[in-house]
Amino acid sequence: MAAEGTEQLYPTERLEAFIKSALVAQGLPEQDAAVCATRMIESDLRGVDTHGIFRLPHYSQRIRVNGVNLRPKVQTVRENAVTALVDGDNAMGHVVLTYATELAIRKAETSGLAWVGTRNGNHAGAGAVYSTMPLRHDMVGMYMTVANANHMAPWGGIELILGTNPISVAIPAGEEPPVVLDIATTVTSYGKVKLAAQKGESIPVGWMIDKRGQPLTDPRRSSEGFLVPIGDYKGYGLNVIIGMLAGVLNGAAFGRNVVDFNKDLASRNNSGHMILAMRVDNFQPVETFKREMDRVIREIRDSKRMEKVDRIWLPGEMEHYRVQQRLAKGIPLAPAVLGELRKLADSLNLPDRLE
Amino acid sequence: MAAEGTEQLYPTERLEAFIKSALVAQGLPEQDAAVCATRMIESDLRGVDTHGIFRLPHYSQRIRVNGVNLRPKVQTVRENAVTALVDGDNAMGHVVLTYATELAIRKAETSGLAWVGTRNGNHAGAGAVYSTMPLRHDMVGMYMTVANANHMAPWGGIELILGTNPISVAIPAGEEPPVVLDIATTVTSYGKVKLAAQKGESIPVGWMIDKRGQPLTDPRRSSEGFLVPIGDYKGYGLNVIIGMLAGVLNGAAFGRNVVDFNKDLASRNNSGHMILAMRVDNFQPVETFKREMDRVIREIRDSKRMEKVDRIWLPGEMEHYRVQQRLAKGIPLAPAVLGELRKLADSLNLPDRLE
Repeated sequence: MAAEGTEQLYPTERLEAFIKSALVAQGLPEQDAAVCATRMIESDLRGVDTHGIFRLPHYSQRIRVNGVNLRPKVQTVRENAVTALVDGDNAMGHVVLTYATELAIRKAETSGLAWVGTRNGNHAGAGAVYSTMPLRHDMVGMYMTVANANHMAPWGGIELILGTNPISVAIPAGEEPPVVLDIATTVTSYGKVKLAAQKGESIPVGWMIDKRGQPLTDPRRSSEGFLVPIGDYKGYGLNVIIGMLAGVLNGAAFGRNVVDFNKDLASRNNSGHMILAMRVDNFQPVETFKREMDRVIREIRDSKRMEKVDRIWLPGEMEHYRVQQRLAKGIPLAPAVLGELRKLADSLNLPDRLE
Repeated sequence: MAAEGTEQLYPTERLEAFIKSALVAQGLPEQDAAVCATRMIESDLRGVDTHGIFRLPHYSQRIRVNGVNLRPKVQTVRENAVTALVDGDNAMGHVVLTYATELAIRKAETSGLAWVGTRNGNHAGAGAVYSTMPLRHDMVGMYMTVANANHMAPWGGIELILGTNPISVAIPAGEEPPVVLDIATTVTSYGKVKLAAQKGESIPVGWMIDKRGQPLTDPRRSSEGFLVPIGDYKGYGLNVIIGMLAGVLNGAAFGRNVVDFNKDLASRNNSGHMILAMRVDNFQPVETFKREMDRVIREIRDSKRMEKVDRIWLPGEMEHYRVQQRLAKGIPLAPAVLGELRKLADSLNLPDRLE
């Protein structure tokens, strides 16, 4: 394989086939395994490496201890023309969210707008994978979820009862890449803190605070502190709202009943999500809207920059180019990730060991 | 009047009548003036003092130079069962937004969900005034708008082409106050910076940066810098997304074509907003949902606090109690604001000089 630094590059199709074969070998129906593989690779293509194939060993651990239902009945339990509540029956999150997003798109095709909520799901990868699905139907997509572990406290509190609850919004453009926001409501992720601890580095002021509200910069002490929400009490508020719309409204977990999916592999997560799809032609002819989006995008990108800033990026633009680059050159896998995947391949007797 | 510090307290009804009479004296139809007065006082009741009666002198200046259309035809120009585009015909923003929000609620009553966009509007006060209107119909409300002045640059940029673009979301609860988020996507408002300059105080690191990206803490130098988005590039992204959904999608101003409504009193603002309303019983019986909201709210409020923190607040809870307090005791007006209002009363020969 071509190498880039210490990371090896693999073609998309090969990794997608690898994931699918690993999931089928563990008992997932062929079709569900294919859906999971596609969605996971879409995270990798966007460069959200922590949410793609990297998670396969962890998902596999959960499958092994029956933390995931391999033969679920994902179904719509409440429904009207423009909303639906989907029960995921503890399926792989990617299967539940793909079902929900496709349902939202179908409803929005007919009605112009739809909001679908899910419960009894699981971790489903990067939000942008789902918020961008409506784009090719000339729709806006919006996605929110309750994170699968609590690393944040309420503002002024010291109990870890909130997660990084992310939001993703995707808006179509014309010749320009679509504008795609995909952010956690915390300044950083717990993964980045753990990475700094492994590397023996300190973390910047603003990432975490301790139980007295003071900056915590030694990541080895991370268990004594909490992630900081973006904009302090503002991000806390946004975080809670997302938890209520993606969790409480759907009868899914939020707050203390969130299961830490890393520490507890077997318990049902009851993960909750929401996905909204809306046709832009409710408001303007598609071509008019896209032309105007292009104009605004260029206005922002071409505006005056700070010294030493090479380029102003629109939300999701870096990821757009990364997708193109990785489709052409392959997806890089770090040695540690590759090692885990090979171990998995051995344990499942997969034909491809990614060598 | 009862006094509290240097601020005098006035009963809600008196201030509402004052605003209405001032607007009628300037040519607004009785009904539109009443709507504006109610909406403005709702901002004051919530404690968003910068968005209520405080704005009346400024709105009046705009009216005087024909910056606002006093005899508008606010109308729905595109529509289906669940979406609508409202053209405000440059009416007072409160009139446009009230029309749009009531339309969204009516559509959601029938269909379960609705998204209404507006263009050709004006500044309409605090977002929570509108996002909370669906609450009494057991609906979630969501509101976004493009701010009426640009005090922020794109991330990495130095041109003021973005505003504080706020978002507000309201979710019903049962015995507990509803959960109401209402935040700008900047760490602070330009108003607070100007206030610090007036008082000769410095502003905290994190509020503004200068053209080199360095913290700007002398508010007298504010024209050399920009407001900082919450969570840096994350808030920048959220800001842009809000601008596109509330502005571009509706054919309203966003970016360079935003008119600074303080500096330019006469030009049409073409202010854009979006309002979403959704019945919670799409997903759960109303009572079940409200009970679960109460449980989650109490779980957060009752969780362990940092030392010296008296109480953990839910989003919108402080404002909820402020409404009750101000309804009972009156709305405080600072001497400077009172002076402006009395000048206005004199110039319009109003019967009440707020003495």
